[in-house]
Amino acid sequence: MATLKAAIYPGSFDPVTNGHLDVIQRAARVFDKVVVAVANNSTKNVLFTIGERVEMLKKVTKGIKGVEVDTFDSLVIDYARRKKINVLIRGLRMTSDFDYEFQIALTNRRLAEDVETVFLMPSEHVSFVSSSILKEVASLNADISSFVPKVVEEQLKKRLRR
Amino acid sequence: MATLKAAIYPGSFDPVTNGHLDVIQRAARVFDKVVVAVANNSTKNVLFTIGERVEMLKKVTKGIKGVEVDTFDSLVIDYARRKKINVLIRGLRMTSDFDYEFQIALTNRRLAEDVETVFLMPSEHVSFVSSSILKEVASLNADISSFVPKVVEEQLKKRLRR
Amino acid sequence: MATLKAAIYPGSFDPVTNGHLDVIQRAARVFDKVVVAVANNSTKNVLFTIGERVEMLKKVTKGIKGVEVDTFDSLVIDYARRKKINVLIRGLRMTSDFDYEFQIALTNRRLAEDVETVFLMPSEHVSFVSSSILKEVASLNADISSFVPKVVEEQLKKRLRR
Amino acid sequence: MATLKAAIYPGSFDPVTNGHLDVIQRAARVFDKVVVAVANNSTKNVLFTIGERVEMLKKVTKGIKGVEVDTFDSLVIDYARRKKINVLIRGLRMTSDFDYEFQIALTNRRLAEDVETVFLMPSEHVSFVSSSILKEVASLNADISSFVPKVVEEQLKKRLRR
Amino acid sequence: MATLKAAIYPGSFDPVTNGHLDVIQRAARVFDKVVVAVANNSTKNVLFTIGERVEMLKKVTKGIKGVEVDTFDSLVIDYARRKKINVLIRGLRMTSDFDYEFQIALTNRRLAEDVETVFLMPSEHVSFVSSSILKEVASLNADISSFVPKVVEEQLKKRLRR
Amino acid sequence: MATLKAAIYPGSFDPVTNGHLDVIQRAARVFDKVVVAVANNSTKNVLFTIGERVEMLKKVTKGIKGVEVDTFDSLVIDYARRKKINVLIRGLRMTSDFDYEFQIALTNRRLAEDVETVFLMPSEHVSFVSSSILKEVASLNADISSFVPKVVEEQLKKRLRR
Repeated sequence: MATLKAAIYPGSFDPVTNGHLDVIQRAARVFDKVVVAVANNSTKNVLFTIGERVEMLKKVTKGIKGVEVDTFDSLVIDYARRKKINVLIRGLRMTSDFDYEFQIALTNRRLAEDVETVFLMPSEHVSFVSSSILKEVASLNADISSFVPKVVEEQLKKRLRR
Repeated sequence: MATLKAAIYPGSFDPVTNGHLDVIQRAARVFDKVVVAVANNSTKNVLFTIGERVEMLKKVTKGIKGVEVDTFDSLVIDYARRKKINVLIRGLRMTSDFDYEFQIALTNRRLAEDVETVFLMPSEHVSFVSSSILKEVASLNADISSFVPKVVEEQLKKRLRR
Repeated sequence: MATLKAAIYPGSFDPVTNGHLDVIQRAARVFDKVVVAVANNSTKNVLFTIGERVEMLKKVTKGIKGVEVDTFDSLVIDYARRKKINVLIRGLRMTSDFDYEFQIALTNRRLAEDVETVFLMPSEHVSFVSSSILKEVASLNADISSFVPKVVEEQLKKRLRR
Repeated sequence: MATLKAAIYPGSFDPVTNGHLDVIQRAARVFDKVVVAVANNSTKNVLFTIGERVEMLKKVTKGIKGVEVDTFDSLVIDYARRKKINVLIRGLRMTSDFDYEFQIALTNRRLAEDVETVFLMPSEHVSFVSSSILKEVASLNADISSFVPKVVEEQLKKRLRR
Repeated sequence: MATLKAAIYPGSFDPVTNGHLDVIQRAARVFDKVVVAVANNSTKNVLFTIGERVEMLKKVTKGIKGVEVDTFDSLVIDYARRKKINVLIRGLRMTSDFDYEFQIALTNRRLAEDVETVFLMPSEHVSFVSSSILKEVASLNADISSFVPKVVEEQLKKRLRR
Repeated sequence: MATLKAAIYPGSFDPVTNGHLDVIQRAARVFDKVVVAVANNSTKNVLFTIGERVEMLKKVTKGIKGVEVDTFDSLVIDYARRKKINVLIRGLRMTSDFDYEFQIALTNRRLAEDVETVFLMPSEHVSFVSSSILKEVASLNADISSFVPKVVEEQLKKRLRR
């Protein structure tokens, strides 16, 4: 018997990159519904407001079936329980910090045994640029058109080159 | 709209360990149907026949909803296509070989873009013992009761201590 | 001929976690005397004062034979020499940063060939939560009772939720 | 037919260590010309001014054939193109962060397909101390004479112990 | 003053893959001359004879300026000295075994201080398939056309499917 | 109150290298007694007999206070219990396989909670050559005098070059 399978993809998305987008597309093929959940963490130093990040995500995921964009400011597992969704998605890039991802996933599991973290592997073509390296090279006038969607490229240029 | 979500968990399972079982249980909570697919690879040196491995898997997964046990002797992505299932599951242990897992997953993706590999993280309590270490310590009369299900423990004892 | 074997376990302990406590207990079984040495590093951003950290450590290690709590504000190897102790202890978590630990240990060895770093492996049940992740989830009202001793849990709640 | 082979070794060099110097010497044996390029990154928190870092580098590389010291404040690949040099050098220490180095190298390649990153392995005797650990132990009065050239040791002492 | 810069790229090449070919092309842009040196190691279990491996390499590198194919059956550093070439090239794949590569490079350096190992990073598009995984999937009738040059694909098919 | 502190350093030692010897020397400074325990594992493919390996170890450790050489053919934790020693020593080389070492240590801990594994870090000067690489380069007539003690060098030459 089929049940609706939903998953949450949490992150800062400051801003969304082609790597994030690749994970979202893969998640949307595996699950019926994917909630992209933007962390509204007041203490973290961000380039874009929560509103801007949500807006960019909505634009770039518009065509992908089953994807919603939301925000959260609690523990991600508390958010998952409120949404009654028991799957978290994380992208596991070849160049990512496994140790950190595992710490987070194990901590979340200890806090909520019923919420499962599922790791997807983004395409090797788009996955190596983290948001922080992206912002660094963008501030030095790099051509970032292959790292981010068009709408993000424009926002980043405006923000960083003023 | 909910569609039935199925996934394949391929492996040698020579024999199934508590770590495998943990992955199967997690997969069964994320997906509607989980096909545990035992590789019938004639060139690999195995302790148990394909029939014995299937039998042990069937016994230990009997109570888990949505789990089937099957065998395959082709490429796993060809098997996935024949079964019309587009998700592969791999357990990603903290002490596993990420590099090898990534090579396999990227190779499978290149061979079949439509089949997605999903990584689950088994419990840290049961995940560190690989089948090969298990067989080594079992052959030296170790108490393996915390590493494998009861039925496997008995089979291993019979096989290794004759 | 038996000599008294002492070791220093240096760290920030901001605050002490169940992972630290597990290392202390293991160290106390291997060595006759274990000095838990709290770094009084004025430049590092800490949540608890050196006095508070020492007090919590004293409370949670009270029952463990051979354990002392002390502070230091010099190089750890200079502290070791003053104490006439030639063994440093570090916990090596599966999810820890080996590279960083190795850099520190090799640097200390170059500075003091006579001081040996010994790595212990904390239990996989308690070792994955670093002090920084702990503080982050605690500030979001997570139930941290399985990550820290009772006395630390209370202090953290007071400090973070005011 | 031999062409002049030049390479750029970019970095912060805040300050230059024996590990950097080892990479420079190896690079000078592999290439005809090595440009040590000091990043003039205004946002990064540095201990020494760009002028001081260049001066120290010039002093310690004076005797090495084919080595020049320069500064840059753009993307390193834009600098490479202006210098008409298509090889970047990076030291790959056993204790370095491969993931980060690979992210940077892949990003640079995407931005400039014609610029190749070449990794050299510094000697295990000098390579484990990063500039940041160096500054930390130097500020605690460590004997750093085996980590940095004499001229740097003196500058560090003046700067940190005032 | 320009000197002719030569490098040796040693390996088993059983058979050459697109990943090897990518490294050869990058090496040929960095160095004037690249000697692809096929190890004639009698104890290692190989699929293709030394003659077949050399022939395939010659065919696929024919168009690349400065590339030669040769064989060696001694220590690679002894071969390098006989050829009067002081640079060894290794491809450093994101999914490769750094530890092993570093052991080999450090051992070679200890045996021959004057021979430098230089690591190149093959393209992420072609680098993840090792020769051993290639042979495994090829034996299961995978479409390997994106992993190896055309001539190698044909040879592999003949060899494995007889 | 001081108790005699003993530790077991288990391994194949086929043959003992300078890296092993470095670990033994460090262990002898940390513990009162160090039992170097040679695994008599009939299934593993070895170059030297158990008797030869013991003899070489005895020769090279003769001058080190508190060191004994012994053999075992059971589980190492069963051997430890028979010897009433509750500490196992493992060398943790920068280029070693952490994952495998952790699997073994966690498995041993599960089998015997009272036996603690302690990791020591051998000198970076001697630690990178594993016994298997050593044997490979020795068979190709490499000068191995910096990797092994004199007595082992002679035995290896005799054995491999006949």
